[in-house]
Amino acid sequence: MNSLESVFVSLKTAQAALAQQTGRQKDAALESVARALDANRNLILKANALDVAKAVSNGMKEALVDRLSLNDKRIDGIIDSLAVVIRLNDPVGKVRAGWTTANGLFIEQVTVPLGVAAIIYESRPNVTVDAFSLAYKAGCPILLRGSSSALESNRALVALIRQGLEQGGGIAESVALADSGRHEDVDTILGARGFIDVVLPRGGRELIRRVVDNAHVPVIETGEGNCHIFVDESAKIQNALDIIENAKIQKPGACNAVETVLVHRGAIGTLMPLLAARFAGSVELRCDERARAAIGAAPAALVLRDAEETDWQTEFLDYILAVKTVDTLDEAIAHINRYGTRHSESILTSNLSAAKDFQARVDAACVYVNASTRFTDGGEFGFGAELGISTQKFHARGPMGLEALTTVKYRISGSGHIRQ
Amino acid sequence: MNSLESVFVSLKTAQAALAQQTGRQKDAALESVARALDANRNLILKANALDVAKAVSNGMKEALVDRLSLNDKRIDGIIDSLAVVIRLNDPVGKVRAGWTTANGLFIEQVTVPLGVAAIIYESRPNVTVDAFSLAYKAGCPILLRGSSSALESNRALVALIRQGLEQGGGIAESVALADSGRHEDVDTILGARGFIDVVLPRGGRELIRRVVDNAHVPVIETGEGNCHIFVDESAKIQNALDIIENAKIQKPGACNAVETVLVHRGAIGTLMPLLAARFAGSVELRCDERARAAIGAAPAALVLRDAEETDWQTEFLDYILAVKTVDTLDEAIAHINRYGTRHSESILTSNLSAAKDFQARVDAACVYVNASTRFTDGGEFGFGAELGISTQKFHARGPMGLEALTTVKYRISGSGHIRQ
Repeated sequence: MNSLESVFVSLKTAQAALAQQTGRQKDAALESVARALDANRNLILKANALDVAKAVSNGMKEALVDRLSLNDKRIDGIIDSLAVVIRLNDPVGKVRAGWTTANGLFIEQVTVPLGVAAIIYESRPNVTVDAFSLAYKAGCPILLRGSSSALESNRALVALIRQGLEQGGGIAESVALADSGRHEDVDTILGARGFIDVVLPRGGRELIRRVVDNAHVPVIETGEGNCHIFVDESAKIQNALDIIENAKIQKPGACNAVETVLVHRGAIGTLMPLLAARFAGSVELRCDERARAAIGAAPAALVLRDAEETDWQTEFLDYILAVKTVDTLDEAIAHINRYGTRHSESILTSNLSAAKDFQARVDAACVYVNASTRFTDGGEFGFGAELGISTQKFHARGPMGLEALTTVKYRISGSGHIRQ
Repeated sequence: MNSLESVFVSLKTAQAALAQQTGRQKDAALESVARALDANRNLILKANALDVAKAVSNGMKEALVDRLSLNDKRIDGIIDSLAVVIRLNDPVGKVRAGWTTANGLFIEQVTVPLGVAAIIYESRPNVTVDAFSLAYKAGCPILLRGSSSALESNRALVALIRQGLEQGGGIAESVALADSGRHEDVDTILGARGFIDVVLPRGGRELIRRVVDNAHVPVIETGEGNCHIFVDESAKIQNALDIIENAKIQKPGACNAVETVLVHRGAIGTLMPLLAARFAGSVELRCDERARAAIGAAPAALVLRDAEETDWQTEFLDYILAVKTVDTLDEAIAHINRYGTRHSESILTSNLSAAKDFQARVDAACVYVNASTRFTDGGEFGFGAELGISTQKFHARGPMGLEALTTVKYRISGSGHIRQ
């Protein structure tokens, strides 16, 4: 048994103890964790400084170094997020349905923790505390496998989490860090049938693909978002401009940012010159022939290219927008169902039946009418916190709050019932 | 593209059309299927006779030949099951939650079909119609991969299902049979990412293991049930005898039959002589030392053996029962959580806190108080029909009705909303 396997056993053992904690006990333990983090900021910052120094000397890109770096304000943010999780309702022990059968058996369907979770993630150290706190609240022990670049930060955070749990009457063994730095650890986690009940990959496309392709335990796939906005003939053009701008540039690197705008031929003439003016100097447009023609005389600062087939397939995560003209609502829906990643799709329209049709026939986790795709987010949905956005249809779909870490159990009560 | 891959494409295409059918349209199509089966019994029986003749000449065991055989009464049963599915409520398009966010976005969580299902199953031809009808009602096209021994029966049934769908305004392309007889077809199905949204294996342990180990698409694992009954000190002994007998012999081959009885030391003296008398001549007992001693002078017809470690691990599916003495409720729970398959577990007790503890701490899909484990069944639960009993915690748990073939979609409506 290598060290990771003994960690699996320890997490599995912690599961039974954690399942017995009441909501109040779990919240008290999380409050104690918040205090431990707050009181030991110097330890966190010192460990983080080691990671940052190493990253800089390894030539890490500035944006990534920034993502890795902690400071007092960011620690405030981590503690604030923890407070949000504490205020959420306990997702465990909810009776979702209850009924009495014809022969008098009383059956209840009640929520229970899903089991042991593992998260495999990149860079940002705040994910360490976020993921732990959500899992703990849901009654799930968690194995954390962060990136090697954040190793010292994660070690400090997990040590303080455990210290907080101990001091607050919690179950310290319900959190562990896979910190050997060995690449094979990921495969060991992905193969840990009977020990790990769900793996959550959080990070870039490569990481998610690797996890999905190699896992022998259940995975919740997150993240990839090739999102569309369809501007219907009847859309209000000023609204459309504001929404497209918001969905593209408010946070271009987000999975819910728009990548392709589909425009009804009846709106293309009005929209394109205004869109070109709006994006001149900020967003590159990759247009099909009709959209390009509709721009007319392009502003000097506009970067404009002809769209190619690959543009419909690409999640740019950048200041780039593909634009395609469609003749009908049907064509827009067909395009989205072909190229979309089932994440977030929006129609801008004043036509009720177009709105209804679009929401019914587009196959995606979140289907919007007259709103920016950027709202696909656990916080915006009112879930308080999120584990990620599921792009799969199995078990969890869309923004995942605490409920994604629960399953159900049936409690059945009889009085000597036998089956006839 | 081999022929199975073109079937995947056809099922995927049918998905969009089927998703647009109203509940009334789906029911009308299923009624037409029932009529087609009823009117063409001769075709079904003729095809089945070929399968049976081949099975007999191949030396198939009598019990399996019986399972394979159809007659008019069994066709009545198939049509009756179809009628039950028709009477169920449409699981699609239910609003499970709806709310307005602080900024005025209206969000609804609504049920939608899971997608394309595949079922890999053994022998009984009635599963062909059952699985199709549940999937169709849930809006899911289905690929059927039955056993080669039922090939002619399944071909006849699927041809009549498609005929019925066509005549009843349904989507005939939403059902297909993988009937090449090639063993590799199973692997092709298990690898069909992007085409198959869920695979349901139904059959013996070997089949289920093979599917779970090799699938690259989501699987719902079903079936294995190493179920326990714990007779607490305070159990009513006559009730206990009736329940143990029911759970063991009403259908020993069922996954919800009991395999091990745990007896509190305070009840062992009273229970064992009566249990030995009850099972003499019918059920073999494999007892630990204390349980064996408690029997005293065994009835002549009783088959009695010493229990070994393997007996605690075995799903006998036979007239065999393991019996173990425990000193405490904790010991009983620990034994079940160690050896159980998370299927169905029962406590017999008059003690309220023991009942509550047992239901809270036993990790299983169905946890009973004072009732036989045999009630774990979609029909008994009032689900009308079942796809199988999930022994996993992911996506679906316990008896699976139509809901297991659905997922959710969020519909979000704004009026020009952009994210701040």
